Amino acid sequence: MSAAAGPAPEGVALEVDEELVGAVDFAKGDGLVPAIVQDASDGTVLTMAYMDAEALRRTLATGRSWFFSRSRQEYWQKGETSGDRQYVREVRLDCDGDALVVLVDQHGRGACHTGEHSCFFRTIGSGPGVPVHVPVPVPEP
Amino acid sequence: MSAAAGPAPEGVALEVDEELVGAVDFAKGDGLVPAIVQDASDGTVLTMAYMDAEALRRTLATGRSWFFSRSRQEYWQKGETSGDRQYVREVRLDCDGDALVVLVDQHGRGACHTGEHSCFFRTIGSGPGVPVHVPVPVPEP
Repeated sequence: MSAAAGPAPEGVALEVDEELVGAVDFAKGDGLVPAIVQDASDGTVLTMAYMDAEALRRTLATGRSWFFSRSRQEYWQKGETSGDRQYVREVRLDCDGDALVVLVDQHGRGACHTGEHSCFFRTIGSGPGVPVHVPVPVPEP
Repeated sequence: MSAAAGPAPEGVALEVDEELVGAVDFAKGDGLVPAIVQDASDGTVLTMAYMDAEALRRTLATGRSWFFSRSRQEYWQKGETSGDRQYVREVRLDCDGDALVVLVDQHGRGACHTGEHSCFFRTIGSGPGVPVHVPVPVPEP
């Protein structure tokens, strides 16, 4: 949290599977795919934003998250103004190619502009669920 | 995995914060919000689908995940044909109200129609990231 640590580190470019980059279906969402940003250290879903092909390319090349703002119609790099940078460890593609998971090291205060670590800090509903039954093996007699 | 366990259990209705249900911004996405489905047991992002107000209402009331299919223009309940049911523990809303995280107990084979546990089983790129620096306190002399 201290600013005494000196300048923020650069990102590290990712090793890329170009075939899979070509498999991203940008057409379905008018050039954009949702990018689910997840904390690589504890699995928290931090935020959701959108990438077009160029934002994905920049993310892979710089090792920091780039998005495309639908409202402002411009590219933005997370943390560029706030300092709350996201360094990317992995980008994953879903089965039908129209959504991404971006695993990051979240630096600074967190991912949310409110100061929360995650943008998903409000609980609409909660319950016990139905935990998956793990059968206890019956020992042979 | 065994089918010997008898009929699948019912879901359990969630305790709901009605004010937050009203805070979901469906208008921005033409009546739909992306719902990020996450495994409550290990944090894996399982899939992403879309909910409208009615799908969210059904999810909260039944304790199982309901979505709205954009391509088929119809409601579907996860696992109804496959048996791979999602029992919901929690639904969270993001800061600007236009995305949901749904924490589930994933039963059956998994969330993906391919048989994978998660739909995000393909890695486009990977790298070391920049792990968050945890300063080691310097002891007072």
